[in-house]
Amino acid sequence: MEDFVKGKFEFREGYSYHMPVHFREDPADKVIDPLYGDVFVLSADITTEMDALARFVPKDFEIPEPIVKVQYSNCRGVDWMSHGEYRILQFGVPVRYLGNNEGLTGLYPLVLWEDKAEPILTGREETGQPKMFADISIERRWEDHWFVRASYEGTTFVKLDFWDKEAAGADEIAVRNNATRRVNAFGWRYIPNVRGGGAALSHAVLYPSEAQMDAMWHGEATITWTEYDWWENIIQARIIMGLSSLPILKVGNALRSRGRCILVNSEARALP
Amino acid sequence: MEDFVKGKFEFREGYSYHMPVHFREDPADKVIDPLYGDVFVLSADITTEMDALARFVPKDFEIPEPIVKVQYSNCRGVDWMSHGEYRILQFGVPVRYLGNNEGLTGLYPLVLWEDKAEPILTGREETGQPKMFADISIERRWEDHWFVRASYEGTTFVKLDFWDKEAAGADEIAVRNNATRRVNAFGWRYIPNVRGGGAALSHAVLYPSEAQMDAMWHGEATITWTEYDWWENIIQARIIMGLSSLPILKVGNALRSRGRCILVNSEARALP
Amino acid sequence: MEDFVKGKFEFREGYSYHMPVHFREDPADKVIDPLYGDVFVLSADITTEMDALARFVPKDFEIPEPIVKVQYSNCRGVDWMSHGEYRILQFGVPVRYLGNNEGLTGLYPLVLWEDKAEPILTGREETGQPKMFADISIERRWEDHWFVRASYEGTTFVKLDFWDKEAAGADEIAVRNNATRRVNAFGWRYIPNVRGGGAALSHAVLYPSEAQMDAMWHGEATITWTEYDWWENIIQARIIMGLSSLPILKVGNALRSRGRCILVNSEARALP
Amino acid sequence: MEDFVKGKFEFREGYSYHMPVHFREDPADKVIDPLYGDVFVLSADITTEMDALARFVPKDFEIPEPIVKVQYSNCRGVDWMSHGEYRILQFGVPVRYLGNNEGLTGLYPLVLWEDKAEPILTGREETGQPKMFADISIERRWEDHWFVRASYEGTTFVKLDFWDKEAAGADEIAVRNNATRRVNAFGWRYIPNVRGGGAALSHAVLYPSEAQMDAMWHGEATITWTEYDWWENIIQARIIMGLSSLPILKVGNALRSRGRCILVNSEARALP
Repeated sequence: MEDFVKGKFEFREGYSYHMPVHFREDPADKVIDPLYGDVFVLSADITTEMDALARFVPKDFEIPEPIVKVQYSNCRGVDWMSHGEYRILQFGVPVRYLGNNEGLTGLYPLVLWEDKAEPILTGREETGQPKMFADISIERRWEDHWFVRASYEGTTFVKLDFWDKEAAGADEIAVRNNATRRVNAFGWRYIPNVRGGGAALSHAVLYPSEAQMDAMWHGEATITWTEYDWWENIIQARIIMGLSSLPILKVGNALRSRGRCILVNSEARALP
Repeated sequence: MEDFVKGKFEFREGYSYHMPVHFREDPADKVIDPLYGDVFVLSADITTEMDALARFVPKDFEIPEPIVKVQYSNCRGVDWMSHGEYRILQFGVPVRYLGNNEGLTGLYPLVLWEDKAEPILTGREETGQPKMFADISIERRWEDHWFVRASYEGTTFVKLDFWDKEAAGADEIAVRNNATRRVNAFGWRYIPNVRGGGAALSHAVLYPSEAQMDAMWHGEATITWTEYDWWENIIQARIIMGLSSLPILKVGNALRSRGRCILVNSEARALP
Repeated sequence: MEDFVKGKFEFREGYSYHMPVHFREDPADKVIDPLYGDVFVLSADITTEMDALARFVPKDFEIPEPIVKVQYSNCRGVDWMSHGEYRILQFGVPVRYLGNNEGLTGLYPLVLWEDKAEPILTGREETGQPKMFADISIERRWEDHWFVRASYEGTTFVKLDFWDKEAAGADEIAVRNNATRRVNAFGWRYIPNVRGGGAALSHAVLYPSEAQMDAMWHGEATITWTEYDWWENIIQARIIMGLSSLPILKVGNALRSRGRCILVNSEARALP
Repeated sequence: MEDFVKGKFEFREGYSYHMPVHFREDPADKVIDPLYGDVFVLSADITTEMDALARFVPKDFEIPEPIVKVQYSNCRGVDWMSHGEYRILQFGVPVRYLGNNEGLTGLYPLVLWEDKAEPILTGREETGQPKMFADISIERRWEDHWFVRASYEGTTFVKLDFWDKEAAGADEIAVRNNATRRVNAFGWRYIPNVRGGGAALSHAVLYPSEAQMDAMWHGEATITWTEYDWWENIIQARIIMGLSSLPILKVGNALRSRGRCILVNSEARALP
């Protein structure tokens, strides 16, 4: 056995790694805030029942109103994808973080479906964003009616429909751009122990981003969950059934927009 | 603000979670060893240079021979996918673990490309398998020549070609099935800190599986890396360039097989 | 203009062409009967109303019973695809051809959805098979329940569910293999004039194939059309709405099988 | 047999049909000129050898210069797809039609690869456009370098790279928009006899379209054919090998643009 050679890869101080670690070493202070240069958004607020909703929000957050924000984003010009594209369908709850005394407010994501694997891996591992894979159809339109469907292995599970009503004026856009320039997402990063249950890692994360709209429309929207049986997707069944169990009392604040976005990785942090 | 309602989700003793944690709670002792009922395999051993190879293996392992095992698996009858399918292209190094005195041997994976997101997430987060996404073409064949290509966004980066030479007899298959019934994969599970560099989690994992072949053929194989520029896939460029930098001195032990596999999750464990 | 050069491609006697014609010339007598080496089938008979059904069958055929045969085929080992694979979801009506005195019986296809473009082109142009594109999910299964979904741009439009009941014995399979070795499909090949309406080509086609089963199961099946709006797929809306308008009075003769198939191109012919 | 019912579908005067004919009847005079509302284009001219090129152009056309125009189009806002999208990679030769005395000039397409089935079917059957399926990657970019790849079942066969050099001014765009508002494509519509060789239909087609650019850049481009073996795609091998056999003496006239396009179906016609 004298010919055995010991591996030579070792972790170095001042560097950070991603799996596969032996190929992906970066200086710890090399943090990039990626630019999403062309983002098309359809969004709306679902009013639901507080009791139903609170079951899905960790006790470290408080919920001002029983609202689920739904947002479809067609992200183009994504610089870290060589200006390629992917799509997101996000369901999140506006909350305030109670775990420290900073009074942080932001969106607690119940789930983000995305149609490419790489942003899913990164988002889950680095900032605890609860991303899952789905096929998300590109936004299509007939007259003033936009529509998007999310499916898995050929079974549609949710439909988002949007009708344009009125273009927003430059003043309204400017006001909104000022008010929402910086928005916070929270995440709960959880990595289980390899065996025996319990967490190897479990903590809240703050993940800010900055968005600017160039154009915006007010509209009306509907969100429709289609019948879905657990054997259609064993892994995701509880997510879909959980979300679709939330009563949809009202859908309001429906907006369509085009703009840009920066993910402020450099200010993401674990929350005590 | 007196109407704010506190979230009601909390982590419970005796349970384990996956993101999104508020939807995915399981009893800690509920561990399933998934069955892959129908697995088609093309595999071969690349002989490379020890110095080049050792750079990519952590110093907690030693390398008996400068071998990279390449394995394409078309996994069908995957029970946790409702008996659906996905494909894997794995590059790994047979090693011995030096981190404890168990004398464990197994395969240290340099990378596993897979063509579905869910096994990638699970493998990375739970057992430190360095999985990445690629489009992996289904095995096709002309006469006795089988071929598989891996690509990303339309750019092929590696080709595996295999020529059938001779079917293995029942005795040889029986001997191999006995010898390799239980095989170990290692993984290095690494989750970076949200900021500041360094690891939130970094440790070796043992991940056993059991495979049985029903039929096997000996053959000849080639592995061909195509020219690949870093801007074709910024995230994966260092992986592809690292692997393709390993000299291919010889390709031997080329095998084709059909069989079954069980992932022994119940015996996976973090290695001290 | 004296430097202009005349094109040199010309059609030759004794040859046949496919678009692009200048690249795809074959001897007229070179006809290949392709082998589909591994075909998984789920099929069932829908009993519907004769009046509703007869609207969709040309008057050159007569209909013995108001039956629509539904068949999902996962075709593997397709030799002309280098033994690759594609999937078919076919709806057809057993009929007798009245256009001549041969007394030909066979299946008049209402539509065949397929998930790859090449067999669609070939089938439409060469033998008038009314093929259209859809995403057809691979058959999946939970316990004895198999399921397949067809979708377009993320919207499911039809679901086929099948429950295994009883394996067929060798005798029954032998009898069926004898009885159905040779089966006829009809097609209606129609190519419109470039302008002004009317047909540049319009005629019935006979297209035989031969199938052999290795294993078979009796079962129960359901076919479920999901709500579908015309703007989901403008081109296919009338097909989906036409088919789904047929009342489903009963679903019987549900079979699952594995076997092989040969398309007898060499005996396909235009019908007078 | 007295219960047999005759089919009730019959072709009607004044109507036009597409397969499946029993579902797709339209008034003969209902012709729509589809709008492609947002088209991104990378194009360049390959100078090749006249003798090599003339082999692939029917003798009904004459070739002024040995040029192959390459054009990648990312078509968005396609109205007949509910404003969805698809991509085209076209290789064509500027020619003059000799079959009549109209002196028509336009582009004779050697092949058009497209990544959706429906425009392929329509283009082939209705106007003889020699369309084939390929996966065409969305245009991506690193700094001023744009790139597109076409692949089939995971094997890249051609790469188009483009470097921005200089934005065109409004005057140049206006001049070009005037000059090229109306452009002609030719096609050769060929449908083979079901058996025995020879054509059931074989004629030239004129297919005009109108394009307008909103923005344009001059650049430099390369076209690179990768090694491709016939068993990678039996059907398309002769197309790829034919095209890639044309010497690339120079690549010039490289342009990038954004704009709109109308297909003037209403003026398409068979050419005598």
